[in-house]
Amino acid sequence: MDALGVGSRGVVDVYSLSNYTFGTKRARGEKDATAAERLLRMRAQYEKEGKRRSVGAICMVSQHRTPHVLLLQITPTSFKLPGGRLRAGEGDVEGLARKMRNKLQPERDDGLEQYEFDIGDQVATWYRTSYEPQMYPYLPAHITKPKEEYRMFVAHLPEKCYFAVPKNLKLLAVPLFELYGNPGKYGAEIASIPHLLSRYRLNLE
Amino acid sequence: MDALGVGSRGVVDVYSLSNYTFGTKRARGEKDATAAERLLRMRAQYEKEGKRRSVGAICMVSQHRTPHVLLLQITPTSFKLPGGRLRAGEGDVEGLARKMRNKLQPERDDGLEQYEFDIGDQVATWYRTSYEPQMYPYLPAHITKPKEEYRMFVAHLPEKCYFAVPKNLKLLAVPLFELYGNPGKYGAEIASIPHLLSRYRLNLE
Repeated sequence: MDALGVGSRGVVDVYSLSNYTFGTKRARGEKDATAAERLLRMRAQYEKEGKRRSVGAICMVSQHRTPHVLLLQITPTSFKLPGGRLRAGEGDVEGLARKMRNKLQPERDDGLEQYEFDIGDQVATWYRTSYEPQMYPYLPAHITKPKEEYRMFVAHLPEKCYFAVPKNLKLLAVPLFELYGNPGKYGAEIASIPHLLSRYRLNLE
Repeated sequence: MDALGVGSRGVVDVYSLSNYTFGTKRARGEKDATAAERLLRMRAQYEKEGKRRSVGAICMVSQHRTPHVLLLQITPTSFKLPGGRLRAGEGDVEGLARKMRNKLQPERDDGLEQYEFDIGDQVATWYRTSYEPQMYPYLPAHITKPKEEYRMFVAHLPEKCYFAVPKNLKLLAVPLFELYGNPGKYGAEIASIPHLLSRYRLNLE
């Protein structure tokens, strides 16, 4: 345990947004037009496969020496972290790496440099108890069978890289102060990111 | 790194409230009658000693198989974690242990069994940027000299022990679901505890 008490990963190096380049790739992955459709699909999946396990990555960049989090904007009013549902039997880190390739990394046949994100600590677990948008950062009393368990990880970005963003999504860099205290706009999970990161020393470029 | 990705301390053993016994000891330590007086005193201290460094401990007990956090109630509307201000040059863990002895442990001459709390991971850092009640879980842009830095730690309780609570304070066990989404009552720091603990597996008795 180091001085920060968070093991060997108490520091996150955060590089300038200007280090990164951004392009697009083919649309993908958004199966539902509305939140209601998504919840209906989750119910059908639960009946077939049991609890949904999903993961998300907190990727940070620095702008004006202020930490920003990369968010994918799905619709004008909905945001999510890069990530998604794990396959049956798939490990958290393995599945998150697959989802990041799908959502942010260049295609293998693009001729662009390939790279991996370095997945760090798990920083939160959220539970969905019913087919509602709301999740909780604890398993509420009397809930023995949550419908979904969603784990958030810190991802350590390469110093420079090329992000290939599916055409149907927008990639935004949102400052921590904009997320803080703003669950109405970003949802409780994303609005809690400032709390979850506060134990780290952010080494801002 | 274990499967939870939080180092060797991914689990917190949480024992039943009924394991613990509670008594009182002499009043102590609340130097200010009001929040305004406290902020004025902080300003005077800052001018003399520089940035205030303070620490708090998240202690958990289980009741009805639901995790509860121990809070000290100062007035009917103000709550805090056991902890307080560090002395000049004092380490976080050393100072927090001193504060816990002061606030929760029996006096050495009480004839009661002595014990130590096992201070675990740091889970958050909060910054006070001005002499206002509000703190932030990040250092806001353009703030180079915060007035206070407050670090929150997980404390691992002994399986059984005797808590000696100063007569001027009340010790409460408050369930996570009561804290969640309730910064108006408990303050942003305490209301964030459910998020901060969510990455741990709570081993509830």
